[in-house]
Amino acid sequence: MLIDAHGHYTTVPAGLRVFRALQISQMGKPSKRGVSISDDEIRASLEKGQLKLMDERGIEVMLISPMASAMGHHFGSALISRHWTEVNNDLIDRVCRLFPTRFIGVCSLPQSPGVSPRECADELERCVREFGFVGCNLNPDPSGGYWTDPPLGDEWWYPLYEKLQALDVPAMIHASATCNPAFHTVGSHYLNVDSTAFLQLMDSRVFRDFPTLRFILAHGGGNVPYQAARYKALSIIHEWEPFDDFIKHFYWDTTVYSQEAMELLIKVVGVDHIIYASEMLGGVNAIDPVTARSFDENKRLVDAVPWLTGPDRTKIFEENVRKAYPRLVQSRSVRP
Amino acid sequence: MLIDAHGHYTTVPAGLRVFRALQISQMGKPSKRGVSISDDEIRASLEKGQLKLMDERGIEVMLISPMASAMGHHFGSALISRHWTEVNNDLIDRVCRLFPTRFIGVCSLPQSPGVSPRECADELERCVREFGFVGCNLNPDPSGGYWTDPPLGDEWWYPLYEKLQALDVPAMIHASATCNPAFHTVGSHYLNVDSTAFLQLMDSRVFRDFPTLRFILAHGGGNVPYQAARYKALSIIHEWEPFDDFIKHFYWDTTVYSQEAMELLIKVVGVDHIIYASEMLGGVNAIDPVTARSFDENKRLVDAVPWLTGPDRTKIFEENVRKAYPRLVQSRSVRP
Repeated sequence: MLIDAHGHYTTVPAGLRVFRALQISQMGKPSKRGVSISDDEIRASLEKGQLKLMDERGIEVMLISPMASAMGHHFGSALISRHWTEVNNDLIDRVCRLFPTRFIGVCSLPQSPGVSPRECADELERCVREFGFVGCNLNPDPSGGYWTDPPLGDEWWYPLYEKLQALDVPAMIHASATCNPAFHTVGSHYLNVDSTAFLQLMDSRVFRDFPTLRFILAHGGGNVPYQAARYKALSIIHEWEPFDDFIKHFYWDTTVYSQEAMELLIKVVGVDHIIYASEMLGGVNAIDPVTARSFDENKRLVDAVPWLTGPDRTKIFEENVRKAYPRLVQSRSVRP
Repeated sequence: MLIDAHGHYTTVPAGLRVFRALQISQMGKPSKRGVSISDDEIRASLEKGQLKLMDERGIEVMLISPMASAMGHHFGSALISRHWTEVNNDLIDRVCRLFPTRFIGVCSLPQSPGVSPRECADELERCVREFGFVGCNLNPDPSGGYWTDPPLGDEWWYPLYEKLQALDVPAMIHASATCNPAFHTVGSHYLNVDSTAFLQLMDSRVFRDFPTLRFILAHGGGNVPYQAARYKALSIIHEWEPFDDFIKHFYWDTTVYSQEAMELLIKVVGVDHIIYASEMLGGVNAIDPVTARSFDENKRLVDAVPWLTGPDRTKIFEENVRKAYPRLVQSRSVRP
């Protein structure tokens, strides 16, 4: 079985965009009402998009979460963020009910700059217990590129970590759009956030305080595998947990798109902590002129790593994601 | 000849720290006076530090610039930044006069958040024309981690680019310390700045407006070689200059510290745009327990790349840096 652990509902029907536009233009009167999307629209949006590509590429199941760039935690008040997040998570639940053997839900969180992550715990619990979602996306910088909240090692985040650990679900570190002109959302900002979050956690006692907490690092970990020796040196200088032990608190997804990068990632992290993902349809939705194939068609890169065994690939394509997301075993689509 | 293109004067005599401490405590009365450092102190600081290691490692010449983390552009007013920068550049000039065959100067710039880079042009010209310096370090985020200035593609930076192009000197992209608790200075912040600057320039017309402008990307380019396919896809989606052409506006230094990273860097960038550097004594000044050697002893990584020829290594160790820094040919130490 091939499971893609990192998909976003980027092909949402227009009704969701209409809701957001009205929410923004009528910010003085916050409301959750007014989302008009039919089941047929949801079906069509996926059958022409993700499902079509999943069938072409042999992906049986995808972990799907709301559009990441559109989370927009920096926009409006905490209540605006809550309404928008709940509407998006409700829509993911509808997707999973319409295609119960193909999609498994991952929620976004109603974060807001300067607002305690404690305020996200209820929505996480709702999505896990009521919808059967298996994880969440956590944005380390709800300000959208100004980095005004405390780092992930700060106790500021602990109420959310307590809930994650209690529910036994992982959080994928994932930024939203930047509103700072210094950054490009899916280029510099996403990748900076991945690496910055990794280092914030290195320089912390989070995993001593939450020994079973797990994070997913997307986008191949930003720069971490490439700069691994730099992180190793910093670990030694600062007397942090040794790098080779520390990286095991994470599962690393394969959303890199060159053969060299895929091999570096798997070599540095080790096959036991890699989970297959293509970030489809996401930031690299373009045809590579050299191969004439889409950049995000990246299973072939894993297939082409010469030193991986069959059992190694089974871990990457299926087994590790079950370890990263223990609640997968209760899901209709991927019961072992 | 082995030239190290990226060294900072991190072993400065205490007199410089005393000046900075007094400058900060007496910020209401800015002054450039009161730097007390003897030639003997300078000699001792280098003979026990950089020169000792250069001799051990066969490095004949180093391009040396002021301490990067201590540039501290975010601190105080533009006048405070100017005084501090001039004092540091003056000190680098003394280093180069005391050891004219071993060190070549690279200046820092008197940047300040919200202040036009036009204000840096005079100090750049002074260092190049009066001291014979061959380049400068340019900080894309003088706010120290809050990213409040326009991106490098903005015309805000053009007066400085005009001066760089007129003097035919390159700028190494290099951050200073962060004052934002989200970041670790030599870990996440330096690397984020490298990759962010690269993408800011991709998403610009800077090289159309300044066709002979050249930048140096330090720290192996942050995440760029590892995430090259992502940048390629973004180039296609946004119709930017093709990645493989765009990367040739830069020279990339070899300050990465694992064999896999060194090979990926050279493979992606190509031997004609790589310049040897060790960032010694810098952020990775620690012993690798696996090799029992210092992480920054990285010439051996270039030596060990199996597919490099002798002429390739000559380019990386010596010839490319002469192309990147044309004023090197006028220098006492590296005349061909």
